[in-house]
Amino acid sequence: MAELRAHDAGSCRKVDDGMARVFQLFGKRWTGLIVAVLLPHPLYFADLRRAVPGISERMLSDRLTELVSAGLVVRDVQAGPPLRVSYSLTEAGAALEPALKKLRSWADKHLPADPYGSSELRK
Amino acid sequence: MAELRAHDAGSCRKVDDGMARVFQLFGKRWTGLIVAVLLPHPLYFADLRRAVPGISERMLSDRLTELVSAGLVVRDVQAGPPLRVSYSLTEAGAALEPALKKLRSWADKHLPADPYGSSELRK
Repeated sequence: MAELRAHDAGSCRKVDDGMARVFQLFGKRWTGLIVAVLLPHPLYFADLRRAVPGISERMLSDRLTELVSAGLVVRDVQAGPPLRVSYSLTEAGAALEPALKKLRSWADKHLPADPYGSSELRK
Repeated sequence: MAELRAHDAGSCRKVDDGMARVFQLFGKRWTGLIVAVLLPHPLYFADLRRAVPGISERMLSDRLTELVSAGLVVRDVQAGPPLRVSYSLTEAGAALEPALKKLRSWADKHLPADPYGSSELRK
């Protein structure tokens, strides 16, 4: 009977709505890393791509489009020649810093270093 | 010239290794949500599936296997009948709570509510 009650309590639980929104965005490969590398200062597309080893041009472009439409990143076109496009965090994007730092220090303590190195992020 | 230096500084930046490990795990659909719903207490597989609307049985099983092998989740088989399997967070998994709370409160402030509701998490 206690077993049954425990089951009922469990079956009622639903994922929190705010949490669902967070991971709708960050539960995709690369998104978190792109925000993380933009934290210190804006980057040009090519530099951003170099900063996230393994990401394809297409994937970076898609993720940036999502981040722009979620209001976390701003795209800035600088008239050339050469014409250059840089990306920076909005206030909302920059406001992720404390959460990302907490994740980072959690990883130091609880996620062993990847023996393959960060350049081989696997799917 | 200043432009060039800025470019060089940018091109040297690399994503942080700990951050890469964090998002190697959480940059996958569902992983963060599964940890979040397990925070309050352990759940049986079926209850876990109900708590994360839209996840398939196969996907939940794959993600749990990854979380177990990363040391964040423990699988507990309770001899039956009926035989039941519950999942709970390890100390490392539970230690994510402060970071997840920060992400949650960030979402409240900066991520507008999903007009489709959490039951329609889109790819």
